[in-house]
Amino acid sequence: MRQSKLFTKTVKELPKDEGSYNAQALIRAGFIDKVAAGVYSYLPLGKRVIENICQIVREEMNSVGGQEISMTALIPKENLESSQRWDNFDVLFRLTGQDQREYALGATHEEIVAPLAKKFISSYKDLPFAAYQIQTKFRNEKRAKAGLLRGREFLMKDLYSFHTDQADLDLYYDQVTEAYWRIFDRLGLKDKTYLTYASGGSFAKYSHEFQTLAESGEDLIYICEKCRVAVNREIIAEQDSCPLCGQKELIEKKAIETGNIFKLGTRFSAPFNVQYKDKEGVEKPVIMGCYGFGPSRVMGTIVEIFHDEKGMMWPENIAPFSVQLISLNTPEESDKLYQELEDAGIKTLYDDRDISAGGKFADADLIGCPYRLVVSSKTLAADSVELKARTEENSELIKLQDILKNLMARLSKS
Amino acid sequence: MRQSKLFTKTVKELPKDEGSYNAQALIRAGFIDKVAAGVYSYLPLGKRVIENICQIVREEMNSVGGQEISMTALIPKENLESSQRWDNFDVLFRLTGQDQREYALGATHEEIVAPLAKKFISSYKDLPFAAYQIQTKFRNEKRAKAGLLRGREFLMKDLYSFHTDQADLDLYYDQVTEAYWRIFDRLGLKDKTYLTYASGGSFAKYSHEFQTLAESGEDLIYICEKCRVAVNREIIAEQDSCPLCGQKELIEKKAIETGNIFKLGTRFSAPFNVQYKDKEGVEKPVIMGCYGFGPSRVMGTIVEIFHDEKGMMWPENIAPFSVQLISLNTPEESDKLYQELEDAGIKTLYDDRDISAGGKFADADLIGCPYRLVVSSKTLAADSVELKARTEENSELIKLQDILKNLMARLSKS
Repeated sequence: MRQSKLFTKTVKELPKDEGSYNAQALIRAGFIDKVAAGVYSYLPLGKRVIENICQIVREEMNSVGGQEISMTALIPKENLESSQRWDNFDVLFRLTGQDQREYALGATHEEIVAPLAKKFISSYKDLPFAAYQIQTKFRNEKRAKAGLLRGREFLMKDLYSFHTDQADLDLYYDQVTEAYWRIFDRLGLKDKTYLTYASGGSFAKYSHEFQTLAESGEDLIYICEKCRVAVNREIIAEQDSCPLCGQKELIEKKAIETGNIFKLGTRFSAPFNVQYKDKEGVEKPVIMGCYGFGPSRVMGTIVEIFHDEKGMMWPENIAPFSVQLISLNTPEESDKLYQELEDAGIKTLYDDRDISAGGKFADADLIGCPYRLVVSSKTLAADSVELKARTEENSELIKLQDILKNLMARLSKS
Repeated sequence: MRQSKLFTKTVKELPKDEGSYNAQALIRAGFIDKVAAGVYSYLPLGKRVIENICQIVREEMNSVGGQEISMTALIPKENLESSQRWDNFDVLFRLTGQDQREYALGATHEEIVAPLAKKFISSYKDLPFAAYQIQTKFRNEKRAKAGLLRGREFLMKDLYSFHTDQADLDLYYDQVTEAYWRIFDRLGLKDKTYLTYASGGSFAKYSHEFQTLAESGEDLIYICEKCRVAVNREIIAEQDSCPLCGQKELIEKKAIETGNIFKLGTRFSAPFNVQYKDKEGVEKPVIMGCYGFGPSRVMGTIVEIFHDEKGMMWPENIAPFSVQLISLNTPEESDKLYQELEDAGIKTLYDDRDISAGGKFADADLIGCPYRLVVSSKTLAADSVELKARTEENSELIKLQDILKNLMARLSKS
């Protein structure tokens, strides 16, 4: 895309009350816009990033047989009364329609998916299955000061699975855990993410959070370096040793909860009467699991982790563009190279604007595409283009005839 | 996809209060689920259809330079007060956060996009541009009895354009009109859709609706057959002749408003003070246009138009699957053909279920994929598979070795 056509620009003024690094950087670079605390619009660059994240999540959910659906944001009061959450769930936005019906805005969707599943389950032959959505959630938080890390309106992927028994749930739960690791790997976050033991509620000893280490994290976790697992703050008093090896030297770290998986058991199938007939014709309750992942929170997490003093540094898989091409008064040659990059399918943000070289370099660093190409009279004198990885200090001159091959090789590694 | 794995089934029982054909058929076939009147979840088959529609819309919006964004559902009261719509817009859902701020749920997004655009516009050089989103809208309708045709929660594509002057808006408005025709063409609705003159508000003589003829439509339009345009009910008293040729023999028809384009002028740029400096440095108001299209309403419209007494008949471009493959006790040969279809990239719903032949045929007709293939001992005796188009009465036997080529040829025509 030609940057001269992009309607957003990097901005110098920030909303006064924006304290989080992720929102500051994303607003400055024109990726998002703040509508209210915890309520952000996604602008073209940010939309590309969030879609890249969602697509990775979608592929991995499909890989474990998840069937994509899209549930409603409006949840009738009756549904939340059935599960006893209408009065007890403190972050619900509540509203009343002209039909005098009361609704909450979906903060999570067990109360929609359980009665939905009930309609299609009669026999053990209908099980197991899993359905997921990537959809806007609403949480009426008292405070929302962490940018994309804690939104009042945010994107969430929620997968729900339905099983005949605990053993089948356990099996699937492990499959989803592996799918989550593939997601974190593709997002460049695997090394910093810990499977973290958390309270299991009534139906399992533990649930699990995926906690990604970050100084700006609101959570504290306690890591066993040997087993690469952790315990969350909620249960550290009762579980003060590694749940795997038993050793007690756990290291406290700040982290962001980027995913959460939970064995629901019959917590929701019981109130919604979701049952199946087993092989002997006996009615039994369906066993459920739920698996959350926050694409917008993960976008904020990536910004918190991958940046330097000049701006963001997007991992290649989710960058808005792979390459930022900067023309320094070389419109003809730059246009030609831009066309070649586009033809080769390399996603390129082409800075063809009539602004200073310094402005272009500063914007490229702030926006943080993985590779920067500069075409100037100096590079052209050497039949070359300057290439610099956003994560590296030094640039190198690459012959014009080699640049496509060079870039393709770099991008295919990721 | 193997139908035995699809978690939805066709259902016989309908919600009691569901009077519209489109919702009845979509619920019976397992495409959508009713959560409340005008509030529907999209299940795997329905999600595929709506995504196909959205992708066509996205491609055509990109073709006119639209930049995709995603604005918020929560709109602060102040924004709607600025445009004097907080008190006057009768379909707003209003709610209050724990921060004591009041919000409306987005029914349209001029009040978000105008202040957003303002942040990036200073000079005439920043214009024109256009941004769009495909996003959930909320309308607090008193009644919602038309299924997907009138939702309280529904999908909408809304494009907004920003210009230095009326002439530039007019030019772009015509380009978007052409893009809309391409959309209706790809959806198979062009022949039934009329550009319909409607009230223009303060800034233009007319706005335009795209009205698609359907017996179940809630609107009345007055058609000039010669010019293939129409006048809507709102202005027929003052505009009782064809706006193009002037003839007065207009034909009254029922129709569904599937799109709506509007020259906003300074209606929203004035209250939000969206201005630019012209070449002489003079501050001038930005001229806006807005362009709506309802993917979920269009999905309902297509069901209303393309069906027979047995069920739905999806146009190829938006069908959930191109082919429904039915195995009649021929698992081995059907599995093989299914694999071949998948390998060839032909989207196939494979009915491998252990149910009666009659049940499979009835489900295939209800679900309405464009082509049905049947593999039975009888067809195999002739080294063949039976092919039937959903829109045709008769089936034909095609040699197994020719079926891929035959299908590819049919599908490439659409």
